[in-house]
Amino acid sequence: MVKVKDFKWHQGIKVSELVDSLGQVGFQSVELAKAKEVIVKMKKDNAKIFLTFTSNMVTSGLRGFFAQLISYKIPDFLVTTAGSIEEDIMKSIGEEFQIGSFEADDVELHEKGINRVGNLMINTEGYMKFEDWINFHLEKCYLKKKNWAVSELLRELGLFLEDENSILYQAAKNDVPIYCPAITDAGIGFHLYLFQQKHKDFVVDVVKDFGNILLGTSFDDKKGVIALGGSISKHHAILATLLNGGAEYAVYMTTAHKSSGSMSGATTDEAKSWGKVKDESDISTVIGDVTIMFPLAMTAALEELKEEGLID
Amino acid sequence: MVKVKDFKWHQGIKVSELVDSLGQVGFQSVELAKAKEVIVKMKKDNAKIFLTFTSNMVTSGLRGFFAQLISYKIPDFLVTTAGSIEEDIMKSIGEEFQIGSFEADDVELHEKGINRVGNLMINTEGYMKFEDWINFHLEKCYLKKKNWAVSELLRELGLFLEDENSILYQAAKNDVPIYCPAITDAGIGFHLYLFQQKHKDFVVDVVKDFGNILLGTSFDDKKGVIALGGSISKHHAILATLLNGGAEYAVYMTTAHKSSGSMSGATTDEAKSWGKVKDESDISTVIGDVTIMFPLAMTAALEELKEEGLID
Amino acid sequence: MVKVKDFKWHQGIKVSELVDSLGQVGFQSVELAKAKEVIVKMKKDNAKIFLTFTSNMVTSGLRGFFAQLISYKIPDFLVTTAGSIEEDIMKSIGEEFQIGSFEADDVELHEKGINRVGNLMINTEGYMKFEDWINFHLEKCYLKKKNWAVSELLRELGLFLEDENSILYQAAKNDVPIYCPAITDAGIGFHLYLFQQKHKDFVVDVVKDFGNILLGTSFDDKKGVIALGGSISKHHAILATLLNGGAEYAVYMTTAHKSSGSMSGATTDEAKSWGKVKDESDISTVIGDVTIMFPLAMTAALEELKEEGLID
Amino acid sequence: MVKVKDFKWHQGIKVSELVDSLGQVGFQSVELAKAKEVIVKMKKDNAKIFLTFTSNMVTSGLRGFFAQLISYKIPDFLVTTAGSIEEDIMKSIGEEFQIGSFEADDVELHEKGINRVGNLMINTEGYMKFEDWINFHLEKCYLKKKNWAVSELLRELGLFLEDENSILYQAAKNDVPIYCPAITDAGIGFHLYLFQQKHKDFVVDVVKDFGNILLGTSFDDKKGVIALGGSISKHHAILATLLNGGAEYAVYMTTAHKSSGSMSGATTDEAKSWGKVKDESDISTVIGDVTIMFPLAMTAALEELKEEGLID
Repeated sequence: MVKVKDFKWHQGIKVSELVDSLGQVGFQSVELAKAKEVIVKMKKDNAKIFLTFTSNMVTSGLRGFFAQLISYKIPDFLVTTAGSIEEDIMKSIGEEFQIGSFEADDVELHEKGINRVGNLMINTEGYMKFEDWINFHLEKCYLKKKNWAVSELLRELGLFLEDENSILYQAAKNDVPIYCPAITDAGIGFHLYLFQQKHKDFVVDVVKDFGNILLGTSFDDKKGVIALGGSISKHHAILATLLNGGAEYAVYMTTAHKSSGSMSGATTDEAKSWGKVKDESDISTVIGDVTIMFPLAMTAALEELKEEGLID
Repeated sequence: MVKVKDFKWHQGIKVSELVDSLGQVGFQSVELAKAKEVIVKMKKDNAKIFLTFTSNMVTSGLRGFFAQLISYKIPDFLVTTAGSIEEDIMKSIGEEFQIGSFEADDVELHEKGINRVGNLMINTEGYMKFEDWINFHLEKCYLKKKNWAVSELLRELGLFLEDENSILYQAAKNDVPIYCPAITDAGIGFHLYLFQQKHKDFVVDVVKDFGNILLGTSFDDKKGVIALGGSISKHHAILATLLNGGAEYAVYMTTAHKSSGSMSGATTDEAKSWGKVKDESDISTVIGDVTIMFPLAMTAALEELKEEGLID
Repeated sequence: MVKVKDFKWHQGIKVSELVDSLGQVGFQSVELAKAKEVIVKMKKDNAKIFLTFTSNMVTSGLRGFFAQLISYKIPDFLVTTAGSIEEDIMKSIGEEFQIGSFEADDVELHEKGINRVGNLMINTEGYMKFEDWINFHLEKCYLKKKNWAVSELLRELGLFLEDENSILYQAAKNDVPIYCPAITDAGIGFHLYLFQQKHKDFVVDVVKDFGNILLGTSFDDKKGVIALGGSISKHHAILATLLNGGAEYAVYMTTAHKSSGSMSGATTDEAKSWGKVKDESDISTVIGDVTIMFPLAMTAALEELKEEGLID
Repeated sequence: MVKVKDFKWHQGIKVSELVDSLGQVGFQSVELAKAKEVIVKMKKDNAKIFLTFTSNMVTSGLRGFFAQLISYKIPDFLVTTAGSIEEDIMKSIGEEFQIGSFEADDVELHEKGINRVGNLMINTEGYMKFEDWINFHLEKCYLKKKNWAVSELLRELGLFLEDENSILYQAAKNDVPIYCPAITDAGIGFHLYLFQQKHKDFVVDVVKDFGNILLGTSFDDKKGVIALGGSISKHHAILATLLNGGAEYAVYMTTAHKSSGSMSGATTDEAKSWGKVKDESDISTVIGDVTIMFPLAMTAALEELKEEGLID
């Protein structure tokens, strides 16, 4: 067994050194250090990596970090929810979100046309700009073909954005598919519906996309999952790996606990019972806010990958 | 302001009496009592009620309770995830789930073909029986037509079940639509995909269903949301009410906290900033495990509704 | 293994029936039903029962319920924090607490002389009335003797209250010792300090009280712990049972999770590694708000104990 | 309002740069960056700083970090629980703790004489070595005088340890008092009790120590609180500052949420209603595991303090 070792600070300590030290501190710090280690391992082992996240992370400043990771070719696949798509586009077409307070007066915000996501604020007008953009570009897509798997459509939309900080753009540019099994669950769903009313033969095909995520990896590929937050993003990625024999590597970061039996709180251990991760796999479940845990573990991992020449 | 009042037990105390007393105890008990009250109010006010839940609740013994509530015509619409559909069908065709432990040995379970959801256990064979059933009945549906909105397909499947304890059956029988914006995110997605491979013109249309949920209510209807757990089920229902002017009544029950900015932890207050619930609305956010909170609040609400002759 | 069974409501369902049904529902409901069962068992087995709680529960309307349980001779020992002592006395001398909101404007409250504990409100003046009362009665105690073990002092103070709803009074009347290992950690600590300044030979002896809690039970006694919330109240009771060979029965109710290694979140399983509870013991850890979980489980337990003639 | 800004990694990013960037990311990362800022501010402003922590943090490798911070004269006062005292001494006299698993088999651990605290493991023998040490040194203290305020006794014991990594030793050496309002709530309580049985005039005076913590600061001093975890450690420090007019600066780090009204989950906002922190104060409440949050925020703060020549 590893011994507990006192953490000691020194001026100039590197992030990876800090994270490695935390590995001998205790409680969640042990899991965090392990998360960094598993991420490094899955990359070194050339595993196909699924990165999943929920839309509130795209509301936050993790959005550009995800784009950066895609540009470094860390993930091979993304899985997320419809809100992420919407807000990535909104940011790319110039909308800026604000930092406010969890305790804001919501009636007052509503009067001002400000929508709250935790301590982040989105202006209602941003959704109008989005509406114009999406309608214009859906028309362009429709001219190309009528039946779109979700990931195909997102790739096409991403190419229009031409923004290095955009998840959709970087994903399109680097051939990283974005799976979004509940594409209608945001304002974009409303726009797709209105668009379909005008173009009755327009089909957004979620079933076809299930084939795409399934065939993206095989039983023979090493597979890794980095699931940030819960929701269907997390579930969909581990379902895809399950059907291909399970993942070798899994890192879950979440604020949810296992006590309520939810997917959000389901641990990497529970995943073993399903064959979602392999019994001998390298796994870590970190309980904590993703906006801190992920930049910290990932920065440490990038430092190490960079030193070993594994990213440019 | 209401005063704190000591809770006192007496033999024969009714559930509604217990819950009402909790309204003067403090902390979450106040929210629970309010949840009961808001549920009673939305029913008395003839609000159109969205009941949303996640699949782990269908894994649990809440499943038959949801079916019972549908038979009492409490909800007008259901919103849930694909796992709920799958497990409701599995239970209706004879599969039995077991109660185990959160701390079970997952490698051992996997060897035995047992899949764990928190402290509940599902046999792998159950999924095979489901496969046979779903393939057989998809064929029947396909013979009727090729393009199905999700809720139409679920209604058709529900009618085949003929099980009073089934959510799908009761919903079909009582004309309560089930919306499932991520229908492919479970084993059923795999079967739909294989089915589509055989029948290229088979379309499961999620966009069309967005229109259905949207047109299910109008600006003029009073609207209520009972959101159990988080996920897209919760989000989809409040999105639908938002687009129709917001809900008058909202009860959220969840173990998630607002501190991470997730949808699961978003409060009924936050919803006001979006216009998801109206400013003057009756709202309650109960932090706690739904398997206890919901039967408790709902039993108290049913007692009162029954006494007033509002359910049969 | 026990099977999952659908919960079904019927008019007139008793609380114990509801709780027993929850035992087959899943997730925390299973633990709640077990908690009720373990409480009934420890009572039937004549175990010496430690009931522990934190001061916020005395702020809430659980206070009179605890008093009622003492009058029914359910607990043999209480362990709590200094705030509980203070607030029980405040309520007995006429102070009333209010129910407000978790989101109240705290600067405004401070200006009005209102102190917030979650969604409960305490007027600053109540602390002044308490000051008068405690000083007057400390003088009376001091006349009797100079060196007081904490539990002796609390017994003496309790007798002065003559309020059936008071924890201190019921405990004193029914010879149930109240252990409070951090007696100075509230306003009462300040008053004790000022009192000692005037009476230099006045000693509040915490070490002597350790002997009292230790000798309150023996290795031969069956022992049970009902720990509500965490903190030193919980720890002190299980430490006392540990030193006497461990408890046979333990019920923990808490909102804390084990992931941070805190005492508040420590489970009944973890307690086994220490010998705090015996290996073969009956245990339950319920994750949830005590203001709901405890009245619910305890009401169900009381119903059963009453039916079996085990309480008057 | 501050804008959300995408976090971007670059090789060689400093910890303080990472933490500052997180200030524009969202959710808890905003609070973390603020925590770092408030800590730097309170130090620059020469506030008297209370650092509070619970014993599980001393079980972890934060123990030597706390000792290091004392050696840098960051805190002026410590407040903690009895377990911290015990485990700091155990580590100083050679005991080593191990890192294990939250899911360990507790019956097996008990058989092996291993006690679990979350994912950390303590050998039972360590407690025997502690017993010898404490008895020997209590005798030495007793020869000096009979009546000890807790903080005086801890200072005396600390001087015996002569271990740079020891909290007690560094505190004694640097004249930083350690307040421990529940000194009997650990094995040390048992040893104090046995010692008092042999020496009837031996008194551990908690009331006198209340005067010490109270007189340690005045209304005129600027005051800051860094409360790690909850429990009486947190409460005692803020009570002490409250009685002296409230703190100007407060940082709370905890995994507890405010929803249950517990002290552990009480926020810096709630503290304003009590006058525990001043209305205009600089405050931050970070929800998260202290073993990650504190080293991260504090490392960033130390970097800045060092650069400005405020620590050696």
